[in-house]
Amino acid sequence: MSDEIKNVEMYRHSMAHVLAKALTELYPEVKLTIGPAIDYGFYYDIDLEHSISSEEYEAIEKKMSEIICSNLDFSKVEVSKEKALEMFANNPYKTELINELPEGEVISIYYLGDDWYDLCRGPHVENTKYLRSFAFEINKINGAYWRGNEKNKMLQRVYCYGFMDKKELKEYKRQQEEAIKRDHNKLGRELELFTTVDYIGQGLPILLPKGARIVQLLQRFVEDEEQKRGWLLTKTPFMAKSDLYKISGHWDHYKDGMFVLGDEEKDKEVFALRPMTCPFQYQAYLNRARSYKDLPLRYNETSTLFRNEASGEMHGLIRVRQFTISEGHLMCTPEQLEAEFKGCLELAIYMLKTLGLFEDASYRFSQWDENNREKYIGTKEQWDEAQGTMKRILDDLEVPYEIGIGEAAFYGPKLDIQIKNVWGKEDTLITIQIDQLLAEKFGMEYVDSDGKKKRPYIIHRTSIGCYERTLAYLIEKYAGAFPTWLAPTQVKVLTISEVHSDYAKSVAEQLQLRGVRVELDDRNETISKKIKEATNEKIPYVLIVGDKECAEGTVSVRVRGKGDTGAMPVDEFVDRIVDDVVTKRLNI
Amino acid sequence: MSDEIKNVEMYRHSMAHVLAKALTELYPEVKLTIGPAIDYGFYYDIDLEHSISSEEYEAIEKKMSEIICSNLDFSKVEVSKEKALEMFANNPYKTELINELPEGEVISIYYLGDDWYDLCRGPHVENTKYLRSFAFEINKINGAYWRGNEKNKMLQRVYCYGFMDKKELKEYKRQQEEAIKRDHNKLGRELELFTTVDYIGQGLPILLPKGARIVQLLQRFVEDEEQKRGWLLTKTPFMAKSDLYKISGHWDHYKDGMFVLGDEEKDKEVFALRPMTCPFQYQAYLNRARSYKDLPLRYNETSTLFRNEASGEMHGLIRVRQFTISEGHLMCTPEQLEAEFKGCLELAIYMLKTLGLFEDASYRFSQWDENNREKYIGTKEQWDEAQGTMKRILDDLEVPYEIGIGEAAFYGPKLDIQIKNVWGKEDTLITIQIDQLLAEKFGMEYVDSDGKKKRPYIIHRTSIGCYERTLAYLIEKYAGAFPTWLAPTQVKVLTISEVHSDYAKSVAEQLQLRGVRVELDDRNETISKKIKEATNEKIPYVLIVGDKECAEGTVSVRVRGKGDTGAMPVDEFVDRIVDDVVTKRLNI
Repeated sequence: MSDEIKNVEMYRHSMAHVLAKALTELYPEVKLTIGPAIDYGFYYDIDLEHSISSEEYEAIEKKMSEIICSNLDFSKVEVSKEKALEMFANNPYKTELINELPEGEVISIYYLGDDWYDLCRGPHVENTKYLRSFAFEINKINGAYWRGNEKNKMLQRVYCYGFMDKKELKEYKRQQEEAIKRDHNKLGRELELFTTVDYIGQGLPILLPKGARIVQLLQRFVEDEEQKRGWLLTKTPFMAKSDLYKISGHWDHYKDGMFVLGDEEKDKEVFALRPMTCPFQYQAYLNRARSYKDLPLRYNETSTLFRNEASGEMHGLIRVRQFTISEGHLMCTPEQLEAEFKGCLELAIYMLKTLGLFEDASYRFSQWDENNREKYIGTKEQWDEAQGTMKRILDDLEVPYEIGIGEAAFYGPKLDIQIKNVWGKEDTLITIQIDQLLAEKFGMEYVDSDGKKKRPYIIHRTSIGCYERTLAYLIEKYAGAFPTWLAPTQVKVLTISEVHSDYAKSVAEQLQLRGVRVELDDRNETISKKIKEATNEKIPYVLIVGDKECAEGTVSVRVRGKGDTGAMPVDEFVDRIVDDVVTKRLNI
Repeated sequence: MSDEIKNVEMYRHSMAHVLAKALTELYPEVKLTIGPAIDYGFYYDIDLEHSISSEEYEAIEKKMSEIICSNLDFSKVEVSKEKALEMFANNPYKTELINELPEGEVISIYYLGDDWYDLCRGPHVENTKYLRSFAFEINKINGAYWRGNEKNKMLQRVYCYGFMDKKELKEYKRQQEEAIKRDHNKLGRELELFTTVDYIGQGLPILLPKGARIVQLLQRFVEDEEQKRGWLLTKTPFMAKSDLYKISGHWDHYKDGMFVLGDEEKDKEVFALRPMTCPFQYQAYLNRARSYKDLPLRYNETSTLFRNEASGEMHGLIRVRQFTISEGHLMCTPEQLEAEFKGCLELAIYMLKTLGLFEDASYRFSQWDENNREKYIGTKEQWDEAQGTMKRILDDLEVPYEIGIGEAAFYGPKLDIQIKNVWGKEDTLITIQIDQLLAEKFGMEYVDSDGKKKRPYIIHRTSIGCYERTLAYLIEKYAGAFPTWLAPTQVKVLTISEVHSDYAKSVAEQLQLRGVRVELDDRNETISKKIKEATNEKIPYVLIVGDKECAEGTVSVRVRGKGDTGAMPVDEFVDRIVDDVVTKRLNI
């Protein structure tokens, strides 16, 4: 932890005491429990009959300022357990905490001023005068069970923003507002891209027509690009008997993450939904004997996977139980490995650049944890070799990676391409992995030019990653204003009045003929209302047709983010938007 | 059963006795068991130490002919159980069968000639002279357990073809040979379209690159055609909590056909893989309030489904546990129902015609079974209304349907479009269903023009059906020689010698640039060997390039099924094949 973080934590922690003292003064019957620093401030959990309303925030903040301006000392005293119990005799929460401490422990108590104290390990600032420039603000009050256990009493948790100065606080709040606006889990629902339904389950999002269209476009784009680069499409089943996973090692190393169908003790056949495509796609390789002349063999699949994660870990389209991924497995000779790895990385970068996500990505070289060997298959020598090979390749390619110990797959090291969501949480979007261990398990081999049977290297890779997650990042990146080629609706044609309806239809038809996704709004509503709705839907181009446009064979073009850009002949506009689509232009 | 079928059965049954008598004469130690008629002849299961080899077939057939030419009478005698046990005292199988008959039962025994008899219910022809023109032939001998129980002794089952005359037998054998050649379960593997793997499981086919390509092309074609016809794509999850299926009725009416994940007694959440898309796709409708102005709303999805069928029922790509289907659900007002149903039927027929399967299809109007009400949801009145509506629509559209009682879905009647495989087995390819019951269960409604809330009608439909099954029928229909637009490889370019390799590459590149799927064979092999291989792969066009073609900028075109059609300028050939693809021409 850096000194700076330590420092701000100490300030925040000190502020929690200020808050607690203020609450005690305002609500003398309050029972204090705990009050830690958090990453944007601090909170305090209190037991108080009266439910604090937001109207009271100002009074609390004012009281806190008064305490700060009183230049009170934070002073530590050390007492025995018995003494501590005596000092907090009227507070059952503190009493519970003290009772849990070992016998004979010296307990520290911090006074703030002369007569108010709290049980605390510290450290704190020496005097509240150091908190004068500290910027704080009550954020919200939530319910929270004592010690997080729903069997305990529900307390009130008073959250406060807390930053070293006003500028930092303002910047944080601005970022939060921006994040809220972009949060895919909110915006994606508002734009009717996806939804979730309680009785279907968490982590099982439903892609509504607009979201499904974007994923369809992405999948076709990826499949076509991969086909051009020599990948052969497969479509393999989403489940298999446990027998398969016993060979691959998933049964021993990954069973907890899998959905199992049936009961091993009762049923003749037990199936499991696949968490990865590897052993399925290998069957294409194994379908006939292979020679070095067949290599490299590149198999791709738009593959649906299932992971049995806990309900609490689910998040919108980013953490889900079922997802579809641009999965690929490539078998090659040792001599081909570096060039093929490079090809996979180039493909991933091409995808990131095309989607405009390249600048946001970072790289992790995920290695095994030698001290945790039971998590992996293979020997130390095999891991040293695979990781050594990967390191050499990454260094040759000058990939600016960080190292993640213990983050490898159970069968080999990974290059993970990471990306952060609007809230700063990082996840893996794309992965490229090197593996020789599974080839061994499945008896995969090829006859080399010297007539000898050898094991191929396998590269596991994704080229854009899970489509649900990619869609989430795209929503957040573009705040729902997708590049034209991905926009579910690319053009909306609005009529000024009913008489322009036929002309508007003919404009829409011309666009449809060239494959443009167009909607027509010829309702009997005011043009300003129609424009407002289309703007809210973040449609790239809005075309307005009235008397002038009908007479001249033009359309008035409103460009998203730019407003009215004037009239244009219809065919010229069609050429323009088709060019946007063909070039996959990111900005319009 | 028609008289004709009864008649041929009687002949076949009589022939089984002739076979048994012949076997008794040739192998006196034989113990006879049972010998029924089957749909292409008859068989007899025998217990015989000596294993009959195919070299002995002729002698058995000769002996059978001798028996027939002896003009022996089939004569029935009726005996008591005790007498029957005495007559078959040295045959433990017959003894077992007789012992199972009720006490006091009169048992019929048929003599063939004076001294050979068999336990039998009859009827038979009166005299073997009537069997003279009957055509028969031993087909094969398989092992078969006594009474089909693997704990019993393994017997020899002697199968014979048996038809009323030689012409019928010959025609049947010709059909069988043709079926073997077309059988997708054999040919599809040979052409490397798909495979299955024991440790993955039965009914879980793996689509290899060539098969996956065809399915990809079909899915894009269907999705695009549906989009043109106003269908909105969704992508919904493949599993849900049991809560969903309890609302829909699947939990009560379809649970045995579903894969369940988890244990209701132990787990907090139990999931099940979906056997149908309906309740998932309804969520798109339910995502906001609907008005009559929104209707009809047509949702389509390339949807993967799972059905927990027994291992023994699996067959290639036709009977599988996981399949992907062009699923759709359409919500409309009662007034719109007929036109929308017609639209669905037109779409299905368009698909069948495009694939060349239209002539092979037949129609079943699948209704509920009033005497088996527990299989269905809803009241008699609701079923009468839905079936009445469907009948009116089908009659208006002059669909030539047969009626299938008890074949409805549990929620409504169906129009099933049926197709037969090469072995004559019929399955459903496409289905269009009318339903109002699930709309009620899920609380789906719309505000009508009169301001009242009403339930929409729902049409459940597929437009081409399950892609695995469709691929199977296409393999069988075209014996693997797919129409150009669907052929995994459309063109193969063959070089006469090494010097033509660069020119061949440039030809291939010109084709690729226009989106043609092309392979290059510039190996150092004879041109006749290369042509033979390309012919076996059933590639539509094989282009041969040698000195003349290089010099003139042409290609020599071999058209599948037609052979060499002479030289053609490259660009002319490119135009020709692109036209095949664009028009989806069935024949080349």
